[in-house]
Amino acid sequence: MNREEVFNFAAGPSVLPQRVLERAAGEMLNYRGSGMSVMEMSHRSAAFQEIFDTAKASFRELLQIPDSHEILLLQGGATLQFAAIPMNLLAGGTADYAVTGRFSGIAAREAEKYGTVHIAADTSDTGHDRIPAQEELSFSDGAKYFYYCANNTIYGTEWQYVPDAACPLVCDMSSDILTRPVDFANYALVYAGAQKNMAPAGLTVVIVRKDLAGKALAYTPDILRYDTMIRTDSMLNTPPCWCIYLFSLVLDWVREQGGVEAMDERKRERAKLLYDVLDDSRLFRPHARREDRSFMNVTFSTADKVLDAAFVSGAAERGLLNVKGHKSTGGIRASLYNAMPVAGAAKLAAYMREFEKEHV
Amino acid sequence: MNREEVFNFAAGPSVLPQRVLERAAGEMLNYRGSGMSVMEMSHRSAAFQEIFDTAKASFRELLQIPDSHEILLLQGGATLQFAAIPMNLLAGGTADYAVTGRFSGIAAREAEKYGTVHIAADTSDTGHDRIPAQEELSFSDGAKYFYYCANNTIYGTEWQYVPDAACPLVCDMSSDILTRPVDFANYALVYAGAQKNMAPAGLTVVIVRKDLAGKALAYTPDILRYDTMIRTDSMLNTPPCWCIYLFSLVLDWVREQGGVEAMDERKRERAKLLYDVLDDSRLFRPHARREDRSFMNVTFSTADKVLDAAFVSGAAERGLLNVKGHKSTGGIRASLYNAMPVAGAAKLAAYMREFEKEHV
Repeated sequence: MNREEVFNFAAGPSVLPQRVLERAAGEMLNYRGSGMSVMEMSHRSAAFQEIFDTAKASFRELLQIPDSHEILLLQGGATLQFAAIPMNLLAGGTADYAVTGRFSGIAAREAEKYGTVHIAADTSDTGHDRIPAQEELSFSDGAKYFYYCANNTIYGTEWQYVPDAACPLVCDMSSDILTRPVDFANYALVYAGAQKNMAPAGLTVVIVRKDLAGKALAYTPDILRYDTMIRTDSMLNTPPCWCIYLFSLVLDWVREQGGVEAMDERKRERAKLLYDVLDDSRLFRPHARREDRSFMNVTFSTADKVLDAAFVSGAAERGLLNVKGHKSTGGIRASLYNAMPVAGAAKLAAYMREFEKEHV
Repeated sequence: MNREEVFNFAAGPSVLPQRVLERAAGEMLNYRGSGMSVMEMSHRSAAFQEIFDTAKASFRELLQIPDSHEILLLQGGATLQFAAIPMNLLAGGTADYAVTGRFSGIAAREAEKYGTVHIAADTSDTGHDRIPAQEELSFSDGAKYFYYCANNTIYGTEWQYVPDAACPLVCDMSSDILTRPVDFANYALVYAGAQKNMAPAGLTVVIVRKDLAGKALAYTPDILRYDTMIRTDSMLNTPPCWCIYLFSLVLDWVREQGGVEAMDERKRERAKLLYDVLDDSRLFRPHARREDRSFMNVTFSTADKVLDAAFVSGAAERGLLNVKGHKSTGGIRASLYNAMPVAGAAKLAAYMREFEKEHV
């Protein structure tokens, strides 16, 4: 298949901007006259340090991250942060977790190893088709932090408000970081696996309020301690250099496109194309409740598994790849991250209408 | 600088085979007709699973790893393994550590969080210029494992024998894996950061005896548990897909070159070119004792820091890059990993002779 014929709706790792891949391919064997690939550079070299510093500065500027917060470029994915966060910030106390999907559920269970977890909300009773309202959230006294996952990739729900809690917020923004402005003053910590909106898999970005670091449990591995990683500027050991380089190219691209405000507009445009079809449809049933639905992952199904499968394979024949739902939910899922062109969502919407005409 | 004019002697991340980079660049925007980059593929896709399985199978075949051992493809570098190893294998008992350089020293200190560490040898008294002989090693009764670092990148020493211990061996082979055959029957666990001989930074390969997994400390993060990662075939979460793809290309290249036996011959050839100069020299002083010196990192200096710096900058003018010694030792270091052509070592040797003529 030619690249031009394909729109890749994978939930992550997922599509990267064409221009980013072209730049990376063009300088792959010789990065800007260095005589070597970025993959071959010492992480202590001036050339790599510049890539690293530029990525951090661009990210800080694009998201207006205040000086109170440090940006860490780490390895291990969200799953390693499920442990690192309570090891560093919970330290035997209590934290409130909102369970709105698979990953917040795993995060809550992992945190139980390191302190007391209070479940502030759990939407599993309705198949995680919604986000709890502010008044549904149950808080514990003296909680160290309130934890939530901003966007639930599997279920296609997204918090459309910032929870109001007495304690600092911790948020997994793996699937919607860089898609909207964020007020970091609300957050103790925000983190995101890079493989949806930022870079290839292998990089995890953590934005942590500096004054909260330094209270880790004694047995915390050095490399998981936020204070250590702040002190070493994420280079206690060799960082994932290639991912950081791609991250810097993606950030350049976001800036060229108009920043996170432009990403915010475009995500609405893309999602609307699909939700408009769903709202009109007599065949497709959206999984998420209307007011809580995600701009990133549009989840739906027909009443018929055979028809779902026919939709997915028909999509693939048209170059609309990876629209099969997660194995735990079945059905159909289209992921619409920053690098998905509006034309991709439009083509998928057209196919949905066509499919409905044929099957209703 | 053109790539053809450069030999990159960086200690890691370091040079990759030209052919590997060319293949990766060629399929970067469209991997074998998939219409997408490997960086954009779901880690659950058939195309990526094939890359993953092929890499593991190639690695197993090249190093003749027995079925008793599992191969894990992880993130976090050696530094994360410094904690993961004792969390999984020490579990409050005692382990013996040979401290022969910076990284084995850090590993020993990290392990103290998780049990009792007995220092089986420590070569810091002579500036880590040597490897302890078998009879120098002090063992403790009932140790869970004996830990050593096969090659000391900073000091340029390398174990030329496999230690004989009553307990299973754990070995950090970050800088000499894939450069020689290894008898895995001796080892409980072997691990290596990929960024010297295997792949770009961001991948850590762990080869662990399966029957030793499953005894981790209760607070071990799930993603650091070897039993969990064996059960999920290293995909509890998204693996570092691009690094694994490059790893598979590097393994193809090693096989094409004649396997680890050919790498073993070539490393001797490269290192001999430099050590022959050092053995004849009245200007350069090798850091490591002759019988313990490394095939990977050749470390030396003149008696004069100004002259060392002149050597390093003269080398750079000739395209012989990154020969400055580690900041903790000073002097000069040439790293000669698998992807360094013999011609690179020959050119450096010629420059050393030329420099000596001018300065003696």
